[in-house]
Amino acid sequence: MAARVIDGKAFAATVRGKVAEHVAQLKAQGITPGLAVVLVGADPASEVYVRSKGKQTVEAGMHSVEKRLPATASEDEVLSIIEALNGDPDVHGILVQLPLPGHLDESRILATVDPAKDVDGFHISNAGLLATGQKAMVPCTPLGSLMLLRDLHGDLTGMEAVVIGRSNIVGKPMAQLLLRDNCTVTIAHSRTRDLPAVVRRADIVVAAVGRAGMVSGDWLKPGSTVIDVGITRIPTESGKDRIVGDCDYASCAEVAGAITPVPGGVGPMTIACLLANTLTACCRANGLPEPEGLTA
Amino acid sequence: MAARVIDGKAFAATVRGKVAEHVAQLKAQGITPGLAVVLVGADPASEVYVRSKGKQTVEAGMHSVEKRLPATASEDEVLSIIEALNGDPDVHGILVQLPLPGHLDESRILATVDPAKDVDGFHISNAGLLATGQKAMVPCTPLGSLMLLRDLHGDLTGMEAVVIGRSNIVGKPMAQLLLRDNCTVTIAHSRTRDLPAVVRRADIVVAAVGRAGMVSGDWLKPGSTVIDVGITRIPTESGKDRIVGDCDYASCAEVAGAITPVPGGVGPMTIACLLANTLTACCRANGLPEPEGLTA
Repeated sequence: MAARVIDGKAFAATVRGKVAEHVAQLKAQGITPGLAVVLVGADPASEVYVRSKGKQTVEAGMHSVEKRLPATASEDEVLSIIEALNGDPDVHGILVQLPLPGHLDESRILATVDPAKDVDGFHISNAGLLATGQKAMVPCTPLGSLMLLRDLHGDLTGMEAVVIGRSNIVGKPMAQLLLRDNCTVTIAHSRTRDLPAVVRRADIVVAAVGRAGMVSGDWLKPGSTVIDVGITRIPTESGKDRIVGDCDYASCAEVAGAITPVPGGVGPMTIACLLANTLTACCRANGLPEPEGLTA
Repeated sequence: MAARVIDGKAFAATVRGKVAEHVAQLKAQGITPGLAVVLVGADPASEVYVRSKGKQTVEAGMHSVEKRLPATASEDEVLSIIEALNGDPDVHGILVQLPLPGHLDESRILATVDPAKDVDGFHISNAGLLATGQKAMVPCTPLGSLMLLRDLHGDLTGMEAVVIGRSNIVGKPMAQLLLRDNCTVTIAHSRTRDLPAVVRRADIVVAAVGRAGMVSGDWLKPGSTVIDVGITRIPTESGKDRIVGDCDYASCAEVAGAITPVPGGVGPMTIACLLANTLTACCRANGLPEPEGLTA
């Protein structure tokens, strides 16, 4: 039986639509959510992301700010830009595009972002709030994955979830979110002894390791839901890269009940959740109710 | 086969001995680690704990400060005491004895403690540092449990660990610590579907739910290690309470390879780790190397 394909692209469009609708309501009250992106240097991939973020921000009706600094910018210059954005009442979300040039202290820079405006959810305070089950800004990719799972299953209570990978950006916050939604959560990783056996227990598998095609169909419990967060670029003869996930799609789609494709699964959810987080931050800053269905 | 009994009382004495030795070295350099305990009101159990903490602090050669406020103290009074301790260079650790009287905002008070002096590891910043694998102040009970496990097994890499309970004080930080030590970690809880089956996978079981005797021997994989964090007081006919853990000791000791008794297992480790954390905080504050074997 072929798995149901989870259309992340379509779902992300729905999320962006909900965000735009809520933004329109806020604007009618004289409030415009604003997202600022700080880009240091001119990494070509970062340029593409920043452009895409800016475009989607404007399309959602939000105020978009781009702060560009040369690759040679000093740490003090970057910090003073962030401090200005922290103090700017028209900016509700601040995103520092990573990676930063090597001479800059990434953790110091991220720690300077006001946690209430930290729409990437990378600040230590937000990690702590998430880890203790409190209201936080949640990293976008796990938030997007959670939205897909809730859309598919409704209540996740009691489901066995296995998260493969323990990164601070995806694996660990994903585990926290699934735990908050009452899953029994296992975190597996490179040192896990019998990974296929661990994965075979799961009703929900979230693969976030960045190893192309690592999870094969015979690792899965029949009918399970597979969220593939991995993105690996494979060069092809045509010269154009092919993008693949952590799961071997063909064999996994034979066994799983539902699966996100790569591309077109979790990927498009990330920017949609960035917009959702900006809206949430704006609502919180104004003491307004948070948007329904767009938060953890 | 009867399980090996993990003697937490003896191990805690070893930890206190190591702390005292390191404190003596620091004092020879003119540095005395100091621990301040803030007690609001006169809850009898809290009185006992605070007295015990003060006694053990002094026995380890440290400077002990007790700040007592009446149960009617205002939040501002408590906060200004904490701020004074934050600024006191002779105080390296601050512990606010819980529970606080109901009119006080516990989370606001705990958030006021300088994270570097937060020897209970309850501050959001410390939860965030722990959750992202960075240097943190780690809650004492999970730290003590980890020490027992490392002492027994050496390297925990690749072991299957199941933590029962997802409290912010024990279950969640315990899971983070086991993950950091390369275990495959599952967090189970009240909404877990088939808890016995989940526990049966575990090489290491940490029970931290507070339900007397819940885990029975037939839930265990033979030879597994059981860390029983639960403490429940059962009234007896004699009028004196009996203290029992989350595990049914008799049946679990038949199947497990090693088990902590209650009392005398994890319990004594908690204050020992409070002293260890105070020493660690003092070393960090003075830019000195951290004590070996006493941190996560």
